[in-house]
Formats: sequence, structure tokens, C-alpha cells
Amino acid sequence: MPETGTSPRVVTAALLIIGNEILSGRTQDANLAHFAKTLGARGIVIKEARVVADEPQAIIKAVNALRKTYDLVFTTGGIGPTHDDITAECIAQAFGVPLVEDQEALSILRGYYGAALNEARRRMARIPQGASLIRNPVSGAPGFFLENVYVMAGVPSINRAMLNEVIDTLPGGTPRLESVVSGAVPEGAIADGLRAVAGRYPSVEIGSYPNYAHGRFGTSVVLKSTDGSALAEAKRAVVTLIRAAGVEPEEGDPTGKVAAGEPGR
Amino acid sequence: MPETGTSPRVVTAALLIIGNEILSGRTQDANLAHFAKTLGARGIVIKEARVVADEPQAIIKAVNALRKTYDLVFTTGGIGPTHDDITAECIAQAFGVPLVEDQEALSILRGYYGAALNEARRRMARIPQGASLIRNPVSGAPGFFLENVYVMAGVPSINRAMLNEVIDTLPGGTPRLESVVSGAVPEGAIADGLRAVAGRYPSVEIGSYPNYAHGRFGTSVVLKSTDGSALAEAKRAVVTLIRAAGVEPEEGDPTGKVAAGEPGR
Repeated sequence: MPETGTSPRVVTAALLIIGNEILSGRTQDANLAHFAKTLGARGIVIKEARVVADEPQAIIKAVNALRKTYDLVFTTGGIGPTHDDITAECIAQAFGVPLVEDQEALSILRGYYGAALNEARRRMARIPQGASLIRNPVSGAPGFFLENVYVMAGVPSINRAMLNEVIDTLPGGTPRLESVVSGAVPEGAIADGLRAVAGRYPSVEIGSYPNYAHGRFGTSVVLKSTDGSALAEAKRAVVTLIRAAGVEPEEGDPTGKVAAGEPGR
Repeated sequence: MPETGTSPRVVTAALLIIGNEILSGRTQDANLAHFAKTLGARGIVIKEARVVADEPQAIIKAVNALRKTYDLVFTTGGIGPTHDDITAECIAQAFGVPLVEDQEALSILRGYYGAALNEARRRMARIPQGASLIRNPVSGAPGFFLENVYVMAGVPSINRAMLNEVIDTLPGGTPRLESVVSGAVPEGAIADGLRAVAGRYPSVEIGSYPNYAHGRFGTSVVLKSTDGSALAEAKRAVVTLIRAAGVEPEEGDPTGKVAAGEPGR
């Protein structure tokens, strides 16, 4: 059934990546793409991501800006046992609530560490007052959420497990449908026509991504919409456009990645 | 010579990554780490990175927030020939100046495209009034800078070439020295001691990163400072700490990456 006429429910999200190691280039973020795909399948669209340093004011300011702007905020990183893990206390400050030792979290940590539960590890039981725990099936120490802010580990395997714990509880939006049409044509050669198509179908988000593969310039056009019939029409228009450039278009995405190629500046 | 007593010059920067394809997880950002290392070598510290969608208000708002907060702002993406490439006009709006066709840029594009210079490609000659070009040795179409905002391509090979064009012209800071000490010890086991070391050396940034390799939990401690003697002292303290945990520390970083391991949450 085409969804024309129904009003899509848009749920927005932001990702706040906390950690000097990402900003310094020591570590490559591996969570944004996974969040985007997992949330996208539930109709939740990530509209912004920020990476900030392990500095209280930077974290507090970003949390407060993002939680007022987007429906959901997810943070990654900074909830371990060391002195540079300051996310929990910053979230408490951002919400203006005390940071308190949570008895359930403490019990989880006792079960995980036994006699090795020292002072530093016990700090991981502190969460902002009023927050609820997010279970960590990988390594014990839990995350938490407070209102619309979900606080998770940065280590990818733990991060994924925590997202998996909460995903079914999140408010869902109308999932966007996606089509990809590709062709061995430089994007500059179809850009004028593509602009016209984009103007004709305002309910369809159309992205153009250059690639270079097998010695040829190519373009992948990614179309997204909650309106299935508009999406299908826009897709046909893009197919026609690429054919008019003398190239037979393919469904889907031959590269899946933007590569150097067309002077995409 | 230790730099104790000299006042380090701190130059800060932000990276603004523009593109739906990063937020949707279609494309993995590959520029932040390169920026961090290249700028870091000149004593320029990236304090924040943001990823925003191809939406005018999102881009304009982010550019204006970042350029007022940091010494330098670098943007990547959205300067190609297609309708979703809107960075140049957004920068013009952010600065409140008109977007004008630049004769030098047009001449570059004519030389590159010849007869294939259509309307869409010609749009790549439009830059905010008062901006200066950044040469693109890879694929012709230039980037530009205006005051402290540097606008570059997102395609990594072009991005790197553009950064290379301007790097020597940027104001440099006092480069930070770095030491890494690692040991086969979970970070929770040395976290209390590490907190004390961090408190004793406030001029040294100390990061703790858990790893898991060869069946063992480990920790890499990254120390950074512009003060060489404080750095050396803090490093000795970390070596002592790891030894006290019954493990012989190594210089440097056995993994170079954070991996799942210690309940780093």
C-alpha cells in the first residue's frame, strides 16, 4: 500500500560520542554507522552526531543542547572505572540531579567482580538520581537512561549489546523506504537533471554519491522517503535520467562507499 | 629542554562533517583521524567534531556556533555539483555575504572540464564573497576559506590534498608531547592509582584505554603534555603503578586500538 496521504511520524535522534581518543585520531568511531542502521530500521533518524572531549563543560553543554533539540540522545564512552570516565557525573549535572550509588548496579558489580570490586570499579555503580539501568550482558557494569538520554559504553561490542537491550522500548517512527540507482556516469553529467527530479519530489530525499571503480567514474543515487509511491516515481525519473546520459542504470549500489572520483570537491 | 615555565600556545579547532551519508551509516567518516594527526603535529588540537545533515539551517547554525568557539573550523563535504551540495551557499549565509562566481575558480573548472563544463559543474565556481580558494590538485574544483573557516571536499583523497595545501599557512600552537605506557592489567585494577597520578600532574592529560589481546585484558595509558618534564614524571609514576600491580609495563601501544575487554562500560 502506498503511504501517500498518511502523515509520517518522524522520530529524531542525536549521537554524542565522548572521548579524547576519537578526537585525537587514536580510535576510529565504530558506533555511529551501527546506531544509524539499527535506529533507522525503527524509523528513528539520526540528525546530528557530535564528538566532544573528556571535559565536563563540553559534555554538559552538548547533552543539554542535544536533548532539547532531538527526541532521543544516545551517548557513547566515558562510563568506565578510570578518572577520565566522567560521563555519569556530567549527565547528572546536565539534568541538575545528584549522582547516587544505585543498589541494583552495585549488586551487578558485586556479582561480576567479587573480591576484585575496588573503589574505582565501585564508581561504576553511580548513576544520576532517577535514571534507569541499561543491562550490560557483555561485561557487567550497566549503562543508564534518564528521560530521553541513553548513556552507553563506547567499546563497540558493549555498545551494541546495550543498544540491543533498549531498542524495542524506543518510540518508533515511520520507517523510510530506500532505493538506490547507480550508473557508470560522472555525477556532474546528471546533476542538472537530478536537481529537477529533486525539485519535483520534495517528499523524497535524494543523495548523489560519486564513485570510481573498475577505471570508470560512477554515481550512486540514494532515494529515501516514507511515501512509497513518490519514491517509486522519483526512482523511475532517475533511471530515465541515467539512460538519457547513454548508460544503462543498475538497481542498488555497486560500491556501497564513496570513493575518490568525480571532482566532488 | 623541558618547557616548564614557558606558556604553551593553544590553538583549537573543530571539524564539521556535512553529509546525510555519514549520518545514515552509508559512509564511514575517514577524515577526522587524518585531520587530528595532521593538525596535532602543528600543535592544533581538535576539541569538537560535528556531523550534520545536508540541511541549510543545520549547517548554518553549526558553522556559526563553531567559528565563534574555536580558533579554526574545517568543514568536509557538500561542495560538489549536485543539488545536495549546499555547503558554499550555507557558508555565505552563515557569514551574511553573497555567494558569487569566482573568476579564478571558473578558469580552473574550464581548464579541467573543457566542453563538459555544464551548468551544474559551473556551480562549483561559486564561493562566498571575500573567500580565498584552496587548490584541489586531485580533481580541479577548489575549496575555499573565509576568516577562520576552511571548506573542503569530503572525498578523502581530495580532502587530504586540500588540507596539505593549507597546513603550512595555519597558525601553529605548542605541539604536545605524547607517551604511551601499556601493561597486561585490567584498567579497573590500576584506576585508583591512576586517578592519584592524574591529580598530581594537572598539566598532563592522561587517558586510559582498555584492550583485550592474546587472551588477556590490558590497558594503554596515553599521556600528553606540552610540558616535557611533567610528562616524564607522570610517565614514571604510571610505570611504577603498573609494576605495583605485578606486571612489567611496556613502552608504547601494543594494540593502538580500544577493543572489547575490561568492563569499560
